[in-house]
Amino acid sequence: MTKTPDSVVRSFIDQHQAGFLADLADWLRIPSVSADPDRAGDVRRSAEWLVAKLRETGFPVAEVWESDGLPAVFAEWPSGEAEAPTVLVYGHHDVQPAAKADGWDTEPFEPVTIGNRLYARGAADDKGQVFFHTLGLRAHLAATGRTAPAVNLKLLIEGEEESGSPNFGALIRRQAERLAADLVFVSDTGMWSETTPTVCTGMRGKADCQIDLYGPDSDIHSGSFGGAVPNPAVTAAELAAALHDGERRVAVPGFYDGVVELTDRERELFAKLPFDEDGWLRTAKSHGTQGEAGYSTLERIWARPTAEVNGVWGGYTGPGSKTIVPAEAHLKISFRLVAGQDTERVEQAITDWVAGQLPAGIRHEITFRAATRPCLTPLDHPALQSTVRAMGRAFEQEILFTREGGSGPAADLQDVVGAPVLFLGISVPSDGWHSINEKVELDLLRKGVEAAAYLWGDLAENYRLPAAGR
Amino acid sequence: MTKTPDSVVRSFIDQHQAGFLADLADWLRIPSVSADPDRAGDVRRSAEWLVAKLRETGFPVAEVWESDGLPAVFAEWPSGEAEAPTVLVYGHHDVQPAAKADGWDTEPFEPVTIGNRLYARGAADDKGQVFFHTLGLRAHLAATGRTAPAVNLKLLIEGEEESGSPNFGALIRRQAERLAADLVFVSDTGMWSETTPTVCTGMRGKADCQIDLYGPDSDIHSGSFGGAVPNPAVTAAELAAALHDGERRVAVPGFYDGVVELTDRERELFAKLPFDEDGWLRTAKSHGTQGEAGYSTLERIWARPTAEVNGVWGGYTGPGSKTIVPAEAHLKISFRLVAGQDTERVEQAITDWVAGQLPAGIRHEITFRAATRPCLTPLDHPALQSTVRAMGRAFEQEILFTREGGSGPAADLQDVVGAPVLFLGISVPSDGWHSINEKVELDLLRKGVEAAAYLWGDLAENYRLPAAGR
Repeated sequence: MTKTPDSVVRSFIDQHQAGFLADLADWLRIPSVSADPDRAGDVRRSAEWLVAKLRETGFPVAEVWESDGLPAVFAEWPSGEAEAPTVLVYGHHDVQPAAKADGWDTEPFEPVTIGNRLYARGAADDKGQVFFHTLGLRAHLAATGRTAPAVNLKLLIEGEEESGSPNFGALIRRQAERLAADLVFVSDTGMWSETTPTVCTGMRGKADCQIDLYGPDSDIHSGSFGGAVPNPAVTAAELAAALHDGERRVAVPGFYDGVVELTDRERELFAKLPFDEDGWLRTAKSHGTQGEAGYSTLERIWARPTAEVNGVWGGYTGPGSKTIVPAEAHLKISFRLVAGQDTERVEQAITDWVAGQLPAGIRHEITFRAATRPCLTPLDHPALQSTVRAMGRAFEQEILFTREGGSGPAADLQDVVGAPVLFLGISVPSDGWHSINEKVELDLLRKGVEAAAYLWGDLAENYRLPAAGR
Repeated sequence: MTKTPDSVVRSFIDQHQAGFLADLADWLRIPSVSADPDRAGDVRRSAEWLVAKLRETGFPVAEVWESDGLPAVFAEWPSGEAEAPTVLVYGHHDVQPAAKADGWDTEPFEPVTIGNRLYARGAADDKGQVFFHTLGLRAHLAATGRTAPAVNLKLLIEGEEESGSPNFGALIRRQAERLAADLVFVSDTGMWSETTPTVCTGMRGKADCQIDLYGPDSDIHSGSFGGAVPNPAVTAAELAAALHDGERRVAVPGFYDGVVELTDRERELFAKLPFDEDGWLRTAKSHGTQGEAGYSTLERIWARPTAEVNGVWGGYTGPGSKTIVPAEAHLKISFRLVAGQDTERVEQAITDWVAGQLPAGIRHEITFRAATRPCLTPLDHPALQSTVRAMGRAFEQEILFTREGGSGPAADLQDVVGAPVLFLGISVPSDGWHSINEKVELDLLRKGVEAAAYLWGDLAENYRLPAAGR
């Protein structure tokens, strides 16, 4: 093995850490809030700052990519070796809104280091986790004596992630050729905790619909007619209630078709995580657990598909009472999907099931919003094993596994690039994403730099391109 | 039998009909809209007008009764006979709002006779049906040669019925002594149709609650937490769905305790009504029937208790989607009750049932508004038989039976006066209550006068006071 000597990597990082942090602080001072139209210029300035910094890092290609909204950044550094896999790193340079008046202890766009923590909006989500790749890449080159990375490296750093990535799908489809890669690495997630480093192996997908139910042509008197005609508010309730069976499995026939079940090994590894249900409930601001029979809380939110009522409304909702059978009722329902579920087949199954649930006299419409596909990398995937080795060398600890219950644009990359999505992140739940006093733990940020420094060499050596690839 | 000769009654009515209609038109010109604060003076003027007219009719006592809101009218005319039963007639002198701009063909407060119809707001609901008692009573006296009615007659004509009778309960409790009666007659309902005269035998009662369900302390991310914690919108749906079993019976244990079942005779008589389901569905503005198994539509709305969701809300209800587990959800549910159901026991049964339906982690509150008791007069009740005879003599047809699915202040009278509630009304479904172009059929109005003229004599002769009465 031509493993990069870890001590060389560490001493390189030691030498360059101060400059790296000073640069990151400069970037964090740019309030690249994508949700605020008044900050559009700052988002652009952030993209331009990053392009300059990536060129300085050595990327031969680094450019601002215009989207139909705010600009992204693309950079590319070919390996120069014929057999090298191509890796696309995804992150984002826009941030959530923040103002000291929201309750911050410090100015959100004036980075401050207190002990082991760097406080600033974007410190963890996601500038810190994008930026660790720059020093990681330099350490990789320094330690291996290379002049180009061991893999063909591409970066795509989005500018609208915090605004729901409205133009991301179109952008990557337009640029699909230049984004071609064998592997996608998302650096926009986190780990279990400060003391339990982990690698995320997948995200859930999502289907998302509104169901409109219509009964009487207008609200009618519940005394004169109630109990003899169907009530759309009752139908809505019965529909939402029928979503789950007694085991709290989703009762839509065909919903579970193709679901990739948890392996015994995954369940064992999830069970090794120091899960504290009381603490988790505090984070969930909830007062009890409830979910699919036969699965733990973590398995339910990471590895099982679910159905949730996000909103319901119909009839009289003001003060006092109005004894009516309402004319209409509405449901917003979202479904989290896991690997193996086909979003189109799921939507069709839901559509068919809803139509079959309704009593005569209730008319309905069902409208789906764009679905998001799930993604999952199996534990034995060689790229995941490279990631775990790189993280293990950085942390000098066993690396465990998590998944992400939410759904994100990573799945779009999976579709367009046609490559598996992996995750490399060092943020922790206490980092305050989307909240006040966002921070990054400096020792973890350094581990991110180190893991990035080890990863490209390990991949180049151990990741074999699929036979049918490229 | 000292039956009043019907021909004498008819010729008396013939002679006085024109003056009676002219007086009614005067009253209808007073826009006694209780819902409109600007019309408070008109409501008072309507009360004063009625007091004067009742004195003119011969009532020795006729007075305006102040409530905490708008005034009612009370009048009393003792029979002078020791054995005579005491009858309290209930009606109201306030009316629904109306303006020509709402779509009326004529001015709502300028009565117009077109053919057999008198158009005006209040023509049927309820001034016409209150006022037929004045001419009816005069015909009764004229035909029998009496100087006082055969029964001790009391009238209570409310001024806030169209505003939900907010002060009626307090008023009648304060005046309970003067309202003491053996029978209550409500003249504020109608018949099956122009060609099928009927007597209403009861009204449903009502219990009415709001259920507030609380889950997470604030909305939480459905990707991060959904499927592992209880969702109050799902709980609301499951609660509302569980209200009915597969036979669409109310599934709350104890709910049906004491329910007075329909007799075979009542079902036979209901079945004789010329019920046209398509026509009924048009009136209900509905597109299908649904209800308790084993009962017809009429039985469901008149004689069976029901549960209706009047309103439901929770979570995100705006455009697009928001993938949350909402912090709270709410239900407004009303229950129609029938004779034999005790409102307090029903409320307790609902309260207990709701508490037992909720998963751990969902907190709830349940709040009941004031309940309304059901009332029902059995077909063999002697006062009902008198009513049917009086109606039969007026209409010279078989009199069938209906019930009223709604709930009204009549039930309060039943409680406070402690007497059975009967109904005498000649309005028909086409009369346009609470709608535009309200009217009364003049031939039916005359039948009301006639029935009232026969009723008091029949009651005096055939109604025996209960042994424990008075």
